[in-house]
Amino acid sequence: MDILEGGVTGPMGFRAAGEHVGIKKNGQKDLAVLVSDEPATVAAMFTTNRVKAAPVVWSQRLVARRAPMRAVVVNSGNANACTGDRGLEDAIRMGEATARALGIAPDEVLVASTGVIGVPLPMEEVLRGIPVVVGRLAPTREAGTACAQAIRTTDTFTKQAAVQVEIGGRVVTLGGMAKGSGMIHPNMATMLAFVTTDAAISREMLERALRESVVDSYNMISVDGDTSTNDTVAVLANGLAGNPEIGADGPDFAAFREALHALNTHLAKCIVRDGEGATKLMEVHVQGAQDVEAARRLARSVTTSNLVKAALFGADANWGRVLAAMGYSGASFNPAGVRMRFTSAGGTVSLMEDGEPLPFDEDLALRVLGEKEVRVEIELSDGDAAATAWGCDLTYEYVRINGEYRS
Amino acid sequence: MDILEGGVTGPMGFRAAGEHVGIKKNGQKDLAVLVSDEPATVAAMFTTNRVKAAPVVWSQRLVARRAPMRAVVVNSGNANACTGDRGLEDAIRMGEATARALGIAPDEVLVASTGVIGVPLPMEEVLRGIPVVVGRLAPTREAGTACAQAIRTTDTFTKQAAVQVEIGGRVVTLGGMAKGSGMIHPNMATMLAFVTTDAAISREMLERALRESVVDSYNMISVDGDTSTNDTVAVLANGLAGNPEIGADGPDFAAFREALHALNTHLAKCIVRDGEGATKLMEVHVQGAQDVEAARRLARSVTTSNLVKAALFGADANWGRVLAAMGYSGASFNPAGVRMRFTSAGGTVSLMEDGEPLPFDEDLALRVLGEKEVRVEIELSDGDAAATAWGCDLTYEYVRINGEYRS
Repeated sequence: MDILEGGVTGPMGFRAAGEHVGIKKNGQKDLAVLVSDEPATVAAMFTTNRVKAAPVVWSQRLVARRAPMRAVVVNSGNANACTGDRGLEDAIRMGEATARALGIAPDEVLVASTGVIGVPLPMEEVLRGIPVVVGRLAPTREAGTACAQAIRTTDTFTKQAAVQVEIGGRVVTLGGMAKGSGMIHPNMATMLAFVTTDAAISREMLERALRESVVDSYNMISVDGDTSTNDTVAVLANGLAGNPEIGADGPDFAAFREALHALNTHLAKCIVRDGEGATKLMEVHVQGAQDVEAARRLARSVTTSNLVKAALFGADANWGRVLAAMGYSGASFNPAGVRMRFTSAGGTVSLMEDGEPLPFDEDLALRVLGEKEVRVEIELSDGDAAATAWGCDLTYEYVRINGEYRS
Repeated sequence: MDILEGGVTGPMGFRAAGEHVGIKKNGQKDLAVLVSDEPATVAAMFTTNRVKAAPVVWSQRLVARRAPMRAVVVNSGNANACTGDRGLEDAIRMGEATARALGIAPDEVLVASTGVIGVPLPMEEVLRGIPVVVGRLAPTREAGTACAQAIRTTDTFTKQAAVQVEIGGRVVTLGGMAKGSGMIHPNMATMLAFVTTDAAISREMLERALRESVVDSYNMISVDGDTSTNDTVAVLANGLAGNPEIGADGPDFAAFREALHALNTHLAKCIVRDGEGATKLMEVHVQGAQDVEAARRLARSVTTSNLVKAALFGADANWGRVLAAMGYSGASFNPAGVRMRFTSAGGTVSLMEDGEPLPFDEDLALRVLGEKEVRVEIELSDGDAAATAWGCDLTYEYVRINGEYRS
């Protein structure tokens, strides 16, 4: 599936905007609004953290109504988490103000926040800013980019993309934006990611496509093992592509799900590549596992090991740490049947065969690990299940950013 | 319980030695032998990592025989892990050579290794070194210290201590040594820790005392979330104190267990204090939890959060990260009932009450977090269970050590 330039304004009938309204002190964009011209079917997943930010609590309630929705409002610079009753009121007021400016109902507006925890939202700036941002809404690529910029926190680049797929003789477009950086170890749903599409699809099938995609995309990435209080991923489908509505399993659903998964995987990898302090992307592919759950646990345990992450930073082909991380993952596998190699644009170095180390060329290993994207390939002898996880290296910069973030 | 100076030679009837025999390239001590003059009752726990080092596999077999043992041989600088059939042979030969030099049976010798993974043991140096180390065995404090030095890897200080307790009218002594540093996130058993005692105690009660202590001492510490392939903790009890043998529950067993737990907790905290790159010890105490398992999970989740660890390094009173780590721990608790404060020699700063943030003095917070030992106190409203976990900060030095360890 080709990943195209573009973002949330790629599909027909979506307008977006993003501006600086005064939440961030550094003058960067901090408020985003995304609107569908027609009522859109919505599927969403939220953080499994027991401590949920106020906008998560509010948006979960709205999505549970299972009714079509029209808009999303997001602020960055403040997570509106651990802010008590006042936080929930602020989230509701943020949605209400957006609805008022758009002339729609308050329960048609999803609300999300990202940023520092435990500080009340500066509501004066938020409420004054919302009509300004709504006034700039446009269906252009520039407007979609501004929207994607406005949800960033410590992200060093803007994360958006689009895909197209033919369904029922019509071209269906999906566009997405995401933000990540730190406190990234999604579980069930993840950080902030918003996908728009003009596909016509039922609520049930949209939910299923999202659920099936998230488990192998956002849920397979980790920056630092910390699951956030604000994770939200939502898809809005407004049906303007004119395809026959996808209401059941079949080739149309498969095509849509594949397109959604390609987009989600791309955005998820963008998040890891831009993990706080990260200089390298690590892709861990496990095959030959006894079942897919074991494959996922093994792959994810490797990407979350601090020792593996530090070794990647140091370009150290320390396969022992990879094997140790697999060993404590909780998943069952036969250590005597492990084959392992590291591969990148710099070449391929084989490190284990039948669970025993192979002699290898240290210079070649250094070249392989010196690249920006390194793939760890693990082949087991336990079955035929496979999974891929993505992570990044652990660097001085990660320590610096997180030793200084709030103070 | 007073922690006394001394170590494994503190109890009656134990001799020890540690020397450099050529396993480490830097000339530091790398082979340790510990012997009981009388056959000793043994209890031991080993890593739960599915990838187990050869000496763990071998020692587990020996301990499963449930027979008295006489000695322990340990090398540092090489973990003898992921070394295949040859590794197991080497571990067995290491035990045999020690038995021969001591004139005892091979199955009376526990074997342990620690250091780099995946490199065969240099057996020529090991076999030539064992009789030399055995020749230096002595019951002195100096010999105990040499023994504790020889099990170190990247540890920056030697970890040993002793406790005394009166049981059945006799003074019983327990002495211990441990090594830690990196790949420290024990589960069921931990890194290397050896405890000697002259107590008379049955195998069953010794096992129970060890099991009950480990769950709240070694298993509650974490340096980096990585569970090692070599974790081993063993207790040898030779009965020379002359107390009536502890064969059942009661005041004698309680006194022994308390002494053992005080020693284990002290050694566990030493390991965390000396975690790779660590500059600070973090003690997390959770009370008011619904059950002890929830208390342990919550406390441990905080100590293993990279974001909390980095904030501690930066002296940033980022209580939001503490609450987020509790939230994704998997343990159930009521976020609206959380009270939290940070305390140290620098003072005490209250951060949350009834789940909501309190205004606090940033200068005071900086003084509290600037200390070498910081205690995070969390009070819940869910019940009356409590647990304590220990961790360390995440520093530039951790990244440096682990980005360069092997290369």
